[in-house]
Amino acid sequence: MHIVAALGGNALLRRGEHPDAAVQQQHVHDAARSLAELVLAGHEVVITHGNGPQVGLLAAESEADPALAAPYPLDVVGAETQGMIGTLLARELGSRLPGRAVAALITHTEVDPHDPALGRPDKFVGGHLTDRQARLMEAERGWTTARDGDRLRRTVPSPRPVAITEMPAIRALLATGTVVIAAGGGGIPVVRDPDTGRVRGVEAVVDKDLTAALLAELLDADALLILTDVTHVFTRFGAAHPGPITDVTPDGLRELDLPAGSMRPKAEAAAAFAETAGRVAVIGPLDDALGALLGTTGTTVRPRLPGPAAPGPAARPPAPRTAV
Amino acid sequence: MHIVAALGGNALLRRGEHPDAAVQQQHVHDAARSLAELVLAGHEVVITHGNGPQVGLLAAESEADPALAAPYPLDVVGAETQGMIGTLLARELGSRLPGRAVAALITHTEVDPHDPALGRPDKFVGGHLTDRQARLMEAERGWTTARDGDRLRRTVPSPRPVAITEMPAIRALLATGTVVIAAGGGGIPVVRDPDTGRVRGVEAVVDKDLTAALLAELLDADALLILTDVTHVFTRFGAAHPGPITDVTPDGLRELDLPAGSMRPKAEAAAAFAETAGRVAVIGPLDDALGALLGTTGTTVRPRLPGPAAPGPAARPPAPRTAV
Repeated sequence: MHIVAALGGNALLRRGEHPDAAVQQQHVHDAARSLAELVLAGHEVVITHGNGPQVGLLAAESEADPALAAPYPLDVVGAETQGMIGTLLARELGSRLPGRAVAALITHTEVDPHDPALGRPDKFVGGHLTDRQARLMEAERGWTTARDGDRLRRTVPSPRPVAITEMPAIRALLATGTVVIAAGGGGIPVVRDPDTGRVRGVEAVVDKDLTAALLAELLDADALLILTDVTHVFTRFGAAHPGPITDVTPDGLRELDLPAGSMRPKAEAAAAFAETAGRVAVIGPLDDALGALLGTTGTTVRPRLPGPAAPGPAARPPAPRTAV
Repeated sequence: MHIVAALGGNALLRRGEHPDAAVQQQHVHDAARSLAELVLAGHEVVITHGNGPQVGLLAAESEADPALAAPYPLDVVGAETQGMIGTLLARELGSRLPGRAVAALITHTEVDPHDPALGRPDKFVGGHLTDRQARLMEAERGWTTARDGDRLRRTVPSPRPVAITEMPAIRALLATGTVVIAAGGGGIPVVRDPDTGRVRGVEAVVDKDLTAALLAELLDADALLILTDVTHVFTRFGAAHPGPITDVTPDGLRELDLPAGSMRPKAEAAAAFAETAGRVAVIGPLDDALGALLGTTGTTVRPRLPGPAAPGPAARPPAPRTAV
């Protein structure tokens, strides 16, 4: 089967950890075991990944660099993170899959220049700013900032992905049995001038789960795996039927009250893929990607739930009103 | 024809310029015109590039980053530069070649763990260090440093490239007509454990021209173009026959007294490819890649020079003793 596996940012770096390369490499080392199992089970796999903490780190470094007249724009910093995370994933997967080709592609995601989201910078990037720093960056560089809790941070737009420039390359590599790493961080956001064909970068970030869903759809993938640090989507304790959700429809998933910053974009991407492609999406644990595919763990989002006579997990759980 | 085109670091950044992304993008914009001409003339092109100034910049940023317990290792920083330069090249080439697939691959270059060069850190990276900084880095991080002119800088080994991990991916992409950007900065240096197959990064830099020659050899390329900011290899003024060299053999090229830091590695790579592959290598101007291929500009290194009756540039110029 063709599988798109999307790794959360926490696959590389957990909250509170030092963002050193060695720490990230250790996490990738662990994730590679789980991902290699998918490949060894005979599946054609495209791996994509988040880059939130890495973009924040490199953007802050660039802003602080006295050699630069202006810091590198976010799209270029995003490309740096594709290189950095790409090499860690490629070497760890290559180590686990001797004789198997693994390749990481620098990948661009095209966004619509008229996407209203481009006028709505609502995604936080980088570290905390003092009021004075925020005013300075707003005046000098046209940044927008907003309070994240009680501290100011830079905000940037998060437009929807509409095309992935490197689709032909991804297909060509898959066709030769290569394990492909692509569209890291949701892809480097670019817009294409409809008249001249000219491509330019955009100071934005694209949601990596939405890009993963688009990638899976364009590849006609059999399944989309969204891998993270929880085993399932959970209904909240105190809800009518608390506990892990094993099977759910796109509508059932959308009825849940999920946290905006972490689980909601995953749920939206999973629901969109299940609905548009008519295939399964699984939100499941990073350390058991094959189990998530096989339905032994994770929350499987199906276009329709199996009836009572169908094999597999039992009837549809009642849609709870709130969930974490 | 299959062509490998290697861009000098000056394709992206000239001495004394601000290393801002916008400056590099403008240079890439100009280089892309010349490279696109090669593609439009019907050739299958793999582009590789230097990354010296970019590695220095990002390594210095990482060293200065207060969030890190240890700076990112050089191989990871090299991967970042592949992402950064890869996106600039891919988007500028993509803009010049509408409808044509262009893809930048994160590329690893395998080096021999027993290469004696690994014990000889003689390549400068990064900026100047005070004596105190140098002592600190030597003690804390095991760096070696040396004087570059009258200032201390970090030195790292430059082992020979022996394999390019992503060769199957490069071939697969070329076979579908994709313009491939690969092995930036000479490739991310790794060693592969012969017993376990495990791959790990090495704190080193690989000469980008030697990797370009290896890439051209492994691809069985028809020509290797080493593109830089001069039109030819020149004999030194004051030599017996001063002026530009248009045609030369590998041996003739090696007899020249070329500057170690810039032209000598290019000459070594060109000579090695002409000799090993029996094909032409050209050291020529970045702004006329097609002219370099056609022999209207540049220094063409041929396995054997054409005799008097053969077409093309006239007889072999006498080998001068010194050249710039």
